[in-house]
Amino acid sequence: MRIALDAMGTDLAPAPEVLGALQALEHLDEDIEIVLVGDEAVVRAEVAKHGRAPERLSVFHAPDRVTAADAPASVIRRKPDSSIVVGLKLHQEGAVQAFVSAGSTGAMMATSLFTLRPLPGVDRPAIGTTLPTVAGPCLLIDSGANVDCKPHHLLQFAHLGSTYARDTMGLEKPRVALLNIGEEPEKGNEVTVEAHEFLAKEPGIRFVGNIEGRDIILGACDVAVCDGFVGNVLLKFYESVAGFIIALLKPHLGAAAETGGDLENVFRILDYAEYGGAPLLGVGGVSIICHGESPPKAIHNALAVAARAVRSDMVKHSARDVSAGSRLSGTSSAREVS
Amino acid sequence: MRIALDAMGTDLAPAPEVLGALQALEHLDEDIEIVLVGDEAVVRAEVAKHGRAPERLSVFHAPDRVTAADAPASVIRRKPDSSIVVGLKLHQEGAVQAFVSAGSTGAMMATSLFTLRPLPGVDRPAIGTTLPTVAGPCLLIDSGANVDCKPHHLLQFAHLGSTYARDTMGLEKPRVALLNIGEEPEKGNEVTVEAHEFLAKEPGIRFVGNIEGRDIILGACDVAVCDGFVGNVLLKFYESVAGFIIALLKPHLGAAAETGGDLENVFRILDYAEYGGAPLLGVGGVSIICHGESPPKAIHNALAVAARAVRSDMVKHSARDVSAGSRLSGTSSAREVS
Repeated sequence: MRIALDAMGTDLAPAPEVLGALQALEHLDEDIEIVLVGDEAVVRAEVAKHGRAPERLSVFHAPDRVTAADAPASVIRRKPDSSIVVGLKLHQEGAVQAFVSAGSTGAMMATSLFTLRPLPGVDRPAIGTTLPTVAGPCLLIDSGANVDCKPHHLLQFAHLGSTYARDTMGLEKPRVALLNIGEEPEKGNEVTVEAHEFLAKEPGIRFVGNIEGRDIILGACDVAVCDGFVGNVLLKFYESVAGFIIALLKPHLGAAAETGGDLENVFRILDYAEYGGAPLLGVGGVSIICHGESPPKAIHNALAVAARAVRSDMVKHSARDVSAGSRLSGTSSAREVS
Repeated sequence: MRIALDAMGTDLAPAPEVLGALQALEHLDEDIEIVLVGDEAVVRAEVAKHGRAPERLSVFHAPDRVTAADAPASVIRRKPDSSIVVGLKLHQEGAVQAFVSAGSTGAMMATSLFTLRPLPGVDRPAIGTTLPTVAGPCLLIDSGANVDCKPHHLLQFAHLGSTYARDTMGLEKPRVALLNIGEEPEKGNEVTVEAHEFLAKEPGIRFVGNIEGRDIILGACDVAVCDGFVGNVLLKFYESVAGFIIALLKPHLGAAAETGGDLENVFRILDYAEYGGAPLLGVGGVSIICHGESPPKAIHNALAVAARAVRSDMVKHSARDVSAGSRLSGTSSAREVS
């Protein structure tokens, strides 16, 4: 298996990428190769700092780099030699089986859609983000790729999230919930009320009903389905609240912090780097988007997630589950036409 | 000034209500009287536990009580003798200038709308909730009264929130922001894109633009405007995240906690009871909704908020600001017709 990694994605590129890749190669299965995509001279120089490069690490030259100033939709046309476009084209051509980048989220999304294409039955690929909860990770889908979603889009997100959770999070029958403002089926806005109807009768999904904002952290579900507007607000809010509260408490943790050990574990639970990247789900490939501030650990973990997605045949399963689902419920294309 | 307090609202009623009222009378201006509304015998027995009742505390008999099983909209018809209906009718008739209740939020909203009526120019009264941030409190409006809001509703929320923040939070020119998924005006969903346009040209509002989920806690605004669906999900999420993180960290705070003092201050910042109740804004009166689990301190603070709202003439200012705003921007009634 070969995974391409954008070597020019993070704010500190290529250092975190190179170190993350080296760490991943130490821990991942031995049949996994990593292709660093970026300016060859720069990347090779960074790799050289760590001694002799492992055989399973290679570099693929991409002289250009996407910046925050680039309009995401035009990156593929205007920056064909950027690491994001080059990496995703390697994936499109089958030279690699997954692509990981900590570069522009917008560019990753737009270019992934263009190269890997949405799967049949998926109108809108969505971003899944893993949130820490009292009961382990919960996948929030969509966490920002789509706004103004219709009920059948939420149904597709439910399938994509469920398949991802099963294939990469080790959950046999993931509990899927609809994020809402009340538990009763009739609660919510127009979209969630109809989405609840769809989900309740959808085969192939273990639907546990509506959940409220508080239930996510309490571990009420493995997959929380929502419109990308709500998901994005929530995700960014969560990151900031965690930081805010830790900052408030940290001065009081002085003594405890010095004893180390246990406290590390608390911060680890809250550390997004542990979860390593958010997959763009519903496209014909494995495309993982990382934070621009990702440390090597996050890169390492994102590569591990990519490997699990490839190994488990997640893309094939997603296509199967979504198309089976949408046929049975008469949504998707039927609804698009009406 | 007379404020009515639902004595039968909290889960532990009437104990927290009676103690909260007694504490409020000690701290609030001496011209403030509190009317406890509830079963007279029960309430008087609770008051008697604290010795002789102060002159400024009275009891108004309301034998019935709203429960979670009651459909909010039919409470006014089916439970005319409940403490919520009786208290709001006292307000409607002018016998009191404000009403505070920790009972059913739905019943408070529905009955407030029916008795106090929406102000002219307000299509949808909204709930404002105060969130702790690094820079002091931020009012989140709407935090759950309305879903599927239109852009002009958000504009009205902005006026209502701004007036409330000025009149009761001591802010001369509150910074009003639109909660969104990007800072640029063109970012967001259909509703927020149009709402941004309205807000940007609205006189009488200090509009600071879009904010993202993370900016709330960072103190980027005093009033954050959003649809009630997003606001409600966020609010409940916040409460649970705060609890989750504190629970994670508490074992490590042992030593620090024993030294007391400072740490108390941290928890105080995160304690909703400090902020005491969420106002239903945009109706012709002062209606404050508290948590069902409110301790006496929260009741006390909600009474203080009610007193500030009455003293500052908030309702009159809200009516003036909304109607001036909606005339100038050509929204509200004009849009309702179109």
